[in-house]
Amino acid sequence: MNRYIFILLLISAYCHSQKKDDIESQIKSFYDHSLTKGKSYDWLEHLSNQIGGRLSGSLNAERAVFWSKEELENLGLDRVWLEPVMVPKWVRGNFEYASIESSAGNSINVPICALGGSVATPNKGIRAEVIEIQSIDELEKIGRDIITGKIIFFNRPMDPKLINTFSSYSGSVDQRTRGAEVAIKYGAKAVLVRSMNLKNDDFPHTGSMYYGNVKLKNRIPAAAISTNGANLLSSMLKLDPKLKFFIKQNCQNYPDVLSHNVIGEIKGSLYPEKIILVGAHLDSWDLGDGSHDDGAGVVQSMEVLNQFISLGIKPKHTLRVVLFMNEENGLRGAKKYAENTKKKGEFHLFALESDAGGFTPRGFSFNSSDIIFNKIKLWKKYFEPYYISEFSKGGGGADINPLKPSGTVLAGLRPDSQRYFDYHHSSNDTFDAINKRELELGAATMSSLIFLVDTFGF
Amino acid sequence: MNRYIFILLLISAYCHSQKKDDIESQIKSFYDHSLTKGKSYDWLEHLSNQIGGRLSGSLNAERAVFWSKEELENLGLDRVWLEPVMVPKWVRGNFEYASIESSAGNSINVPICALGGSVATPNKGIRAEVIEIQSIDELEKIGRDIITGKIIFFNRPMDPKLINTFSSYSGSVDQRTRGAEVAIKYGAKAVLVRSMNLKNDDFPHTGSMYYGNVKLKNRIPAAAISTNGANLLSSMLKLDPKLKFFIKQNCQNYPDVLSHNVIGEIKGSLYPEKIILVGAHLDSWDLGDGSHDDGAGVVQSMEVLNQFISLGIKPKHTLRVVLFMNEENGLRGAKKYAENTKKKGEFHLFALESDAGGFTPRGFSFNSSDIIFNKIKLWKKYFEPYYISEFSKGGGGADINPLKPSGTVLAGLRPDSQRYFDYHHSSNDTFDAINKRELELGAATMSSLIFLVDTFGF
Repeated sequence: MNRYIFILLLISAYCHSQKKDDIESQIKSFYDHSLTKGKSYDWLEHLSNQIGGRLSGSLNAERAVFWSKEELENLGLDRVWLEPVMVPKWVRGNFEYASIESSAGNSINVPICALGGSVATPNKGIRAEVIEIQSIDELEKIGRDIITGKIIFFNRPMDPKLINTFSSYSGSVDQRTRGAEVAIKYGAKAVLVRSMNLKNDDFPHTGSMYYGNVKLKNRIPAAAISTNGANLLSSMLKLDPKLKFFIKQNCQNYPDVLSHNVIGEIKGSLYPEKIILVGAHLDSWDLGDGSHDDGAGVVQSMEVLNQFISLGIKPKHTLRVVLFMNEENGLRGAKKYAENTKKKGEFHLFALESDAGGFTPRGFSFNSSDIIFNKIKLWKKYFEPYYISEFSKGGGGADINPLKPSGTVLAGLRPDSQRYFDYHHSSNDTFDAINKRELELGAATMSSLIFLVDTFGF
Repeated sequence: MNRYIFILLLISAYCHSQKKDDIESQIKSFYDHSLTKGKSYDWLEHLSNQIGGRLSGSLNAERAVFWSKEELENLGLDRVWLEPVMVPKWVRGNFEYASIESSAGNSINVPICALGGSVATPNKGIRAEVIEIQSIDELEKIGRDIITGKIIFFNRPMDPKLINTFSSYSGSVDQRTRGAEVAIKYGAKAVLVRSMNLKNDDFPHTGSMYYGNVKLKNRIPAAAISTNGANLLSSMLKLDPKLKFFIKQNCQNYPDVLSHNVIGEIKGSLYPEKIILVGAHLDSWDLGDGSHDDGAGVVQSMEVLNQFISLGIKPKHTLRVVLFMNEENGLRGAKKYAENTKKKGEFHLFALESDAGGFTPRGFSFNSSDIIFNKIKLWKKYFEPYYISEFSKGGGGADINPLKPSGTVLAGLRPDSQRYFDYHHSSNDTFDAINKRELELGAATMSSLIFLVDTFGF
């Protein structure tokens, strides 16, 4: 071999290994920083305990907007701003109450909560017989004659056999989102839905439901019942099929109100016109304080920018954090952001969302072409020391999804899913259910992926 | 190609894929069974809440022995028996108390607990100045003149930057196990050790400590202080280096008492003389109820045999569960088991231990030759659907380790480690810190590995 070629090859091999070492040490610095000096846990403590549940259209949602804007400003980003968006306003009201009443006259209270978007019951409540079913399809089989005037009780549990609990959720949540809309067509008086929870406990889990085109006057109340309550009602129905269920709730829909996405960015040093987005949703349900859904994602996304600044890393692309408003019951923030970004002609190279809880990170799911996914998979080696190994194809997340048509590569952080639905949309989704290290590992994992995208592109 | 050879190859390929399908479906049946019909969670509820903490030599340890024997008998194993073993008896006593007393006369109580095996303080307690150090090596530098009559405060935290928290533990636990033994040589009056806990909270964490060859009359009391307490003491020492620490505890060592390993087995259909062992330790510390350490491992090990019986799988090798007594403060059960098994000339092909908490399983560590480890790694594909991917070389576990010299392949279940030291050896290691699905996934993962060893051998 020519001596010069040999030397050039040696230099190239050296540079390559040097670059790999640099990348590895940079990624280690994200983990070290997050686990020792990260802000995510303290931020979440504030968001959860000092602000609390922050449903779109609530005062707390506004407090969260102003707090997160101020915290981003304190980081010294190049720019921080609010993006106005009109959001739905639904208010739970001041009572929710339900009981099972046996034919013999005995009764027992059961824990329920109104589903988000539901109408109220009449002031005197609704008292009716119950038909327990497992799926929306059964409504057609049972038929209007039998259903009219009754309460439909959707009681198909989440499938415990699916290892990824998000798959179990997907397989059951139609009862919650569409159950009422369909049951109305068969004359039901109200719907009761088994909580989307794999655990047997006393917490009802709320969540969005939609009436479709059903006129306001024809809408019926919809509520979630705790898993223990659902089991009790189901077993009581076997003993006493004529039992009555009583339900009373005074939730209400109001006209839309003004809210905001909260946005901050570090301008790219080489490609300022190409945006790398990291984000989560700032709103939460009103039960609990939304620590896992999605306070964790909010503070992790903020932490990514904090890490770039604290560690003195100048991103080549513009690094933008977006805290979306109204993921839970409307996705208005996500839609508005995508609409505005299109108007402005902005290009998003990549968007990463964290909206699956603050648990030990296991990997990412990617929504991209196979060519890009295969390239991304080469980065898995950098994550091995951190026990991050699940790189799969799949959705990125609800808030970044509207960016897909413009060619953005999407990714979602995938934490361990086992505990998520113990807390999801329920009053026990609170700060004490957060493990500091798990949260911080998630933030570092996100910073690392963002760094790799910024360094190598696609 | 000769037509017959071609047909033979086809048949062989078919059989191979058939066999692979069979294995996959059998493994799926373990997960399905564990997540829907498993006994592990109910068993652990009993062991934790109805029995509770079960330190060697305590009445609760005996209750745990008889309960687990009865439960194994109820499974219909071929044989269930108790293996007698003499174990240490150490009793915490009825008070533990400590306070920081400033030079100005102010004082504040701090949470402590005696370390297992420690002697008591004199009845009137010990009041002395405190020397804070980070490692045992510092004792030599500071020297006997300065140390004499003082309390040595070991305050080196677990390293938060290590991703595997067991590595952090290994890097700090010498302060607890050996701190007193060495400090005695320099005239210390007592030792106080920062709790082995990555979280800042108010729970002191106990654990074993040893005096080595130090004579009984020369032994000094050793206690753990909560991480919050350690941080407070450390910051107070900076303000007031002459402050006094007061400590009083009346724990006591008693003569050894009789206890038992609990053993059950299903005889192998083809190789009854070759044993596959699955086990955990039945004893726990006296604080909390030992749900994670090691109640989880106990019920998971029992569940493996339950699964083989419930699913009608006849193991080719003898499948034996061993619930070891006295892992925490003596390993007497493990030593006795290995001693007896050697006497009887038994051969253990494989031993699997679960003693790292009931958290989401991530993989196994294997103590074997490289040839066998490479063979085992080929089984990783069977675990992919269950997000089990960490196969590493390393220790199997403290209780099965004495089997190593006889050539047994050892393995330890490796669950996610992030939360373990929040609970380890502390009064918050209780049943409410157990997630049912995480526990059950661990049991199914263990059954699957045992099944693969039984099917393929090494």
